[in-house]
Amino acid sequence: MNVLILSAGTRCKLVEYMKDVAGDSLVITTDCSDLAPALYVADRYYVVPRVDAPGYMETILDICQREQVAVCFSLIDPELPLLAANQHRFEEIGTKVMISPPEAVARAFDKWQMHKFCVQHAIPTVRSWIDPEPVRAALASGDLSFPLYAKPRTGSASKDNFQIESLSELHNVAERYPGILIQEFQSGEPLDVDVYVDMVSGEVVSLFAKEKLRMREGTADKAISVLDKDLEQFVITFCEVAGFRGAIDIDLFRTERGFAVLEVNPRFGGVYPHAHECGLNFPKLLLNNVSGASNRADIGTYEAGWIMMTYEDIVSIPPADALGPEAA
Amino acid sequence: MNVLILSAGTRCKLVEYMKDVAGDSLVITTDCSDLAPALYVADRYYVVPRVDAPGYMETILDICQREQVAVCFSLIDPELPLLAANQHRFEEIGTKVMISPPEAVARAFDKWQMHKFCVQHAIPTVRSWIDPEPVRAALASGDLSFPLYAKPRTGSASKDNFQIESLSELHNVAERYPGILIQEFQSGEPLDVDVYVDMVSGEVVSLFAKEKLRMREGTADKAISVLDKDLEQFVITFCEVAGFRGAIDIDLFRTERGFAVLEVNPRFGGVYPHAHECGLNFPKLLLNNVSGASNRADIGTYEAGWIMMTYEDIVSIPPADALGPEAA
Repeated sequence: MNVLILSAGTRCKLVEYMKDVAGDSLVITTDCSDLAPALYVADRYYVVPRVDAPGYMETILDICQREQVAVCFSLIDPELPLLAANQHRFEEIGTKVMISPPEAVARAFDKWQMHKFCVQHAIPTVRSWIDPEPVRAALASGDLSFPLYAKPRTGSASKDNFQIESLSELHNVAERYPGILIQEFQSGEPLDVDVYVDMVSGEVVSLFAKEKLRMREGTADKAISVLDKDLEQFVITFCEVAGFRGAIDIDLFRTERGFAVLEVNPRFGGVYPHAHECGLNFPKLLLNNVSGASNRADIGTYEAGWIMMTYEDIVSIPPADALGPEAA
Repeated sequence: MNVLILSAGTRCKLVEYMKDVAGDSLVITTDCSDLAPALYVADRYYVVPRVDAPGYMETILDICQREQVAVCFSLIDPELPLLAANQHRFEEIGTKVMISPPEAVARAFDKWQMHKFCVQHAIPTVRSWIDPEPVRAALASGDLSFPLYAKPRTGSASKDNFQIESLSELHNVAERYPGILIQEFQSGEPLDVDVYVDMVSGEVVSLFAKEKLRMREGTADKAISVLDKDLEQFVITFCEVAGFRGAIDIDLFRTERGFAVLEVNPRFGGVYPHAHECGLNFPKLLLNNVSGASNRADIGTYEAGWIMMTYEDIVSIPPADALGPEAA
C-alpha cells in the first residue's frame, strides 16, 4: 500500500511516522520546490508544478498510476478543493484520497462560510462579520468592544491579520480590504484538536486536544495536552454536523460561555507530532481504512499535561542528490 | 569536563552535538523559561532568572561551582557583554568561558560601532549611517538610491527592521526612531560563515561558509555550502583584526566589488548544524582548547553544494518532568 503525500513541504515528522507504519510499502512525497525538506526523508520523491499550474492534476494522477499509490493526501489548504473535486479520477485508477466532501472542504477554506455554517447549525463560534456596518452598530450599543481582529477569508499562517483598536482603524481596514473578515477578540484558552474521522464508518475514532501556549506564524510552537470530556463531546458533535473525513485539525477557544469554533483545516494539522508522540497514530488508522477496515473509537486514552516544544532540526543533502528527483 | 550552555532556548541540535563529544562529562543547560526545549535534551538543566535580573551572574557562578563546570558559553546576544565583563570571576572558580574580549563583544552588539570599526580598519562593509542628513545628501547626489534599510543598532532576529522606499518614509522612520541605523540596499549573494577562532593560539582554525537561500526571522532556513579561497582569506583577515575568540558567526555579502561584512554574532550561529552535518566539529575544538591544547587549522576541507533545509521537530515531556528542574 504505497502512500503519496502531496505538497509535503517541511512536514518531515509526518513522513517519518507514515514510513513507520507503511512497512515494506513506499512513502512518496511531492513538492513544487526542490528545497522542501520533506522530499528527502521519503522513500522516493517528485518535484512537481505548483498546484495552480495547468496540468497539475494530470501529473499527480500519473504518479499515482506509475507508483501504484493506494492512498494520497495533501498538506496544504489550496490543494484540498482540487483533490475533493477530482476524487473520482483517483478512484478510477485505484487510488483512495484522504479528503472530506467538496462542500465541507469549501466551507473550511472560507472562514466566512464556516462561520455562517456554524451559526445555522447552532454550533458556538467566534462572532464574525464581513460587513463593517453591524460591527459599528454593535460597538455603539456596547454589545462589542475593541480590540477586534481582521483576517482574509481564505488566509493562512496568520498572514495579513490585523488587530483593530479604534473606529478609525476599523474604517481604514474595511476601506482597504473590502470583504475582509472581522472577528471579536476572543478571551479564554486557545485550543487545537487533531481529529481522525474514520473514512469507512464516518465516526470520530481518535482525537487529541491541546492548549496552545505560544504561537509562531499561525501555529502553536509550545502546547500542553488536555483531557476534557465536554471538549471531546463538543468536537464529536461538530464533526458529525460538518461531515469531515480523515485527519483534520480544529482551532477553538474555551471561553466562560463554553467552547467556540474558530476554524478548521481539513488535513493533518501542523502540530500533529504532539499527538503522535503521546501515543496516537493517525497514519495507522488511515492505512486500516485504505485496506477496507473501519477503526474502533479510542477517545481520551492519552495523558494530560504533556508539554510539546518545537525546535529546528535540519535535513542536509549532498550536491549529487540535490539534482536527482524521480521525475519533474 | 562538564559543559554549561547558557540561555540554550531552542538550540537542541547543538546540545546534542556537545553531548556527543563530551563523553562521560555532563552537558548542562540553563534558560529563563521552563518551555525552552533545549533544557530537556541536556543531561541536567536549570531554570534561572532572566539575564537582566539582579543576582543573575551569581546564580550562574553558583551552578558552575556546584557542577564543576569546565567551560560555559551563551547562545543569546544580550548575555555576551555580561560574560565578557565577568570572565575573571569564572576563572577564579576554575571555569573557562568561551567569549571574545569585552571590546570585540561590545562592537559586535552595536551594529553602528561595528560599522565604524570596519571603516577604520579598511574592512569592506555595508554602507551605514545613523544621521539621516548624509543619507539625504547621498540620495540627492545620486550616490545612493532606494530602497534603504533601517534597523535598531542592537536588534536581532530582524525585529523592527524597515525597508525605506522614499524620502517621506526616510523622514518618518528617522523621526520616530532617532539614532536608528540606516543601511544601503545590498545586492549580491547573502553569505553566512561559522568560524572557530582557537582560544589558545588565536588563529582561525575552522570555518564553514554558506549562501543563504531563504530567510525566516533573521536566520537562513535554507542554505547551500560554499567553498571559496578568497572568502576564506577575507574572513581570516577580518577575524585577526577584530580579535574574536571561540565560535562566532559572520553575516556578509558577495558583491560585484568584493565581500562586505554585514554583522557579527560572537557566539554559535543559529545554523551551525549545517556546518556540523558537513563534518565540522566546533564542540570538539572547544573541548580541546579547554584541556589546554590548541587546534591545527583545517580550512576548506568540507564539500561545496550541500543543501541544508530546516524543519520543525518536537521535544515532548511528560507532566512529572515539567515540574522537576534541578534548581530555580
